[in-house]
Amino acid sequence: MPSANDSAPEAPGYGTSGRIVISVDAMGGDRGPAAVVGGLAESAAKNPRIEFILHGPEEELQRLVSKRSELSGRCRIRHAAGVVTMDDKPSQVMRHGAGTSMWSAIESVKEREATVAVSCGNTGALMALSMIRLRKLPGVSRPAIACLWPSRNPHGFNVMLDVGADIKADSPDLLQYALMGASYARNGLGLARPRIGLLNVGTEDHKGRAELKAAQDLIAEATEAGNFDYVGFVEGGDLPSDRVDVIVTDGFTGNIALKTGEGTAKLVGDFLREAFNANFLSKFAALLALGSLRRLQRRIDPRRVNGGVFLGLNGTIVKSHGSADATGVAAAIQLAFRLAESGFQERLAARVASAAQAGQDVPNDEAEDRTSS
Amino acid sequence: MPSANDSAPEAPGYGTSGRIVISVDAMGGDRGPAAVVGGLAESAAKNPRIEFILHGPEEELQRLVSKRSELSGRCRIRHAAGVVTMDDKPSQVMRHGAGTSMWSAIESVKEREATVAVSCGNTGALMALSMIRLRKLPGVSRPAIACLWPSRNPHGFNVMLDVGADIKADSPDLLQYALMGASYARNGLGLARPRIGLLNVGTEDHKGRAELKAAQDLIAEATEAGNFDYVGFVEGGDLPSDRVDVIVTDGFTGNIALKTGEGTAKLVGDFLREAFNANFLSKFAALLALGSLRRLQRRIDPRRVNGGVFLGLNGTIVKSHGSADATGVAAAIQLAFRLAESGFQERLAARVASAAQAGQDVPNDEAEDRTSS
Repeated sequence: MPSANDSAPEAPGYGTSGRIVISVDAMGGDRGPAAVVGGLAESAAKNPRIEFILHGPEEELQRLVSKRSELSGRCRIRHAAGVVTMDDKPSQVMRHGAGTSMWSAIESVKEREATVAVSCGNTGALMALSMIRLRKLPGVSRPAIACLWPSRNPHGFNVMLDVGADIKADSPDLLQYALMGASYARNGLGLARPRIGLLNVGTEDHKGRAELKAAQDLIAEATEAGNFDYVGFVEGGDLPSDRVDVIVTDGFTGNIALKTGEGTAKLVGDFLREAFNANFLSKFAALLALGSLRRLQRRIDPRRVNGGVFLGLNGTIVKSHGSADATGVAAAIQLAFRLAESGFQERLAARVASAAQAGQDVPNDEAEDRTSS
Repeated sequence: MPSANDSAPEAPGYGTSGRIVISVDAMGGDRGPAAVVGGLAESAAKNPRIEFILHGPEEELQRLVSKRSELSGRCRIRHAAGVVTMDDKPSQVMRHGAGTSMWSAIESVKEREATVAVSCGNTGALMALSMIRLRKLPGVSRPAIACLWPSRNPHGFNVMLDVGADIKADSPDLLQYALMGASYARNGLGLARPRIGLLNVGTEDHKGRAELKAAQDLIAEATEAGNFDYVGFVEGGDLPSDRVDVIVTDGFTGNIALKTGEGTAKLVGDFLREAFNANFLSKFAALLALGSLRRLQRRIDPRRVNGGVFLGLNGTIVKSHGSADATGVAAAIQLAFRLAESGFQERLAARVASAAQAGQDVPNDEAEDRTSS
């Protein structure tokens, strides 16, 4: 990994003083560009090794950025007048998306000004634009979106993919998801040898759909080439489990599971709030337990796990929640930084390309490199 | 609906003094027959209109039942030496299951001694035995398992089906699930005109798999015949929503969603417990809020929603959680009683048969009948 000293400002994805450059779409989120600029400021204050290219209407962004002293000299603005809205259909955006801030943010990755782009915008449109501008990695048939899931593991998260890039996946796709997910867990979570599980309706080998049984065989054969362990089928209840790090599934099932988990956590949280508002005694108790309850909230706060990562393209895109506030945007940027810093994109490309050459083994160097850097 | 006065003890599913008879498998649950007998005793104490046929090893059951005065004269024991274990494969049980307590419990429904059977045993084996002994209802291609889901609706639950009877469902199957789910919601939850939603990765009409778009058209056309409203596609986050009562999906997706929701609720509950155990102040706060926290626990307690219902067979089977304790078993029995009392099985059969005769409308009498009884 290049350090600030040995990388010229001209190196791809590195800015002035060797800082890592993140490309950010200012528009398209539910809370507008002010929340995004707030997130940049939070990130810049915490992390001196980061700088930004921010895409959107120049005048408005200039006004917002100039108010934030943390961003002084660390945020270039790239003018883009158009905005992709949440209601735009991906097919329309593919035809008429040039000139939007989303397009421009992806373009910075394509032109290697930045290695990772972040957007709070329309997921379908972002994936469609990323596909046509960045193209799929050689050897990848279906790109995937990976999300982080609160878990009982020491590092606090599991990875699940695909959570909605495509509504179907056949066995070779699921194998590629396993390889990409393992690489993401090594570089994003720092796990030397991630444990992969395949999502199914039961853990017994005879359960589930035919393509899952075929995928199970492919994944079990690829553990050495992919530098991961395979733990077998896992169930919905295992998503937060500490016996697995990466859960592989098709994008239909993954999307339903992701939204079901979020919806359930929200329901329990709402019921908890109602319980504490029930009477004077419970309100008093909530006051006493405030510190502990805040810690609980942080553990399951969706803003902390903010950032679906698009895998399998020539460039990494981090999709932030549309409703992200400044803290949520900062979390997505932190994830983007970690991935850019680890050289994730090059490692992933090498891993997928090597695995595509049947039988050829790949040096197990990703996590070690990272640990020693 | 026959009352205690106008039904002879010989009427199907009615016992002595016109009580409703529930057939119960004593074996196969994780906590053994003592938990099941405990559940019968709880139910009998609360509900004077219920009696049981209990299936399993006679001597052991006799000993357990004789200790419970609530069950005196209200629990016949039917000897069955064999037990279906959680590890038995459905295919083996289909060949060698005769003589097990599970088989015997289903047999009581087949012989019309009871209208509903309850078992805590192996789900796959229970469905396989139910299929071969009871057979599918005329007009039903794939039976389904319906579960209750804690929700923001005033009645506290939504229905979801299929949660695991079959790993796939085509469009006509999904239509049947909508009809069966609506009938279940009317008779099990007392909703006059249930609102049906179809689970998908987005609410827009162009989203999702081809069979879902076809199913959407079929379901939208059947609202009058099936006496329900169709609200369109719903997402994973809508499972606890108050804009829908019944969520229709295939058994693969439904099983993943069910277990994901249960797993997430458990994770949040564990984190909450840890938060309250963090320090002296938080422990004291937990004591103060004990009443409110207990109310919260009751709202999301999986034992309260205990009971997957097998729909689409000639007879109704309630599958209780394998790990159910006495309270969980009592909840499953209460659900079985409510369905038996409402004449659900006959209504469901009539509804499905009528819907199979294309275009023929069905009198909208189910909920009204129930309300007036």
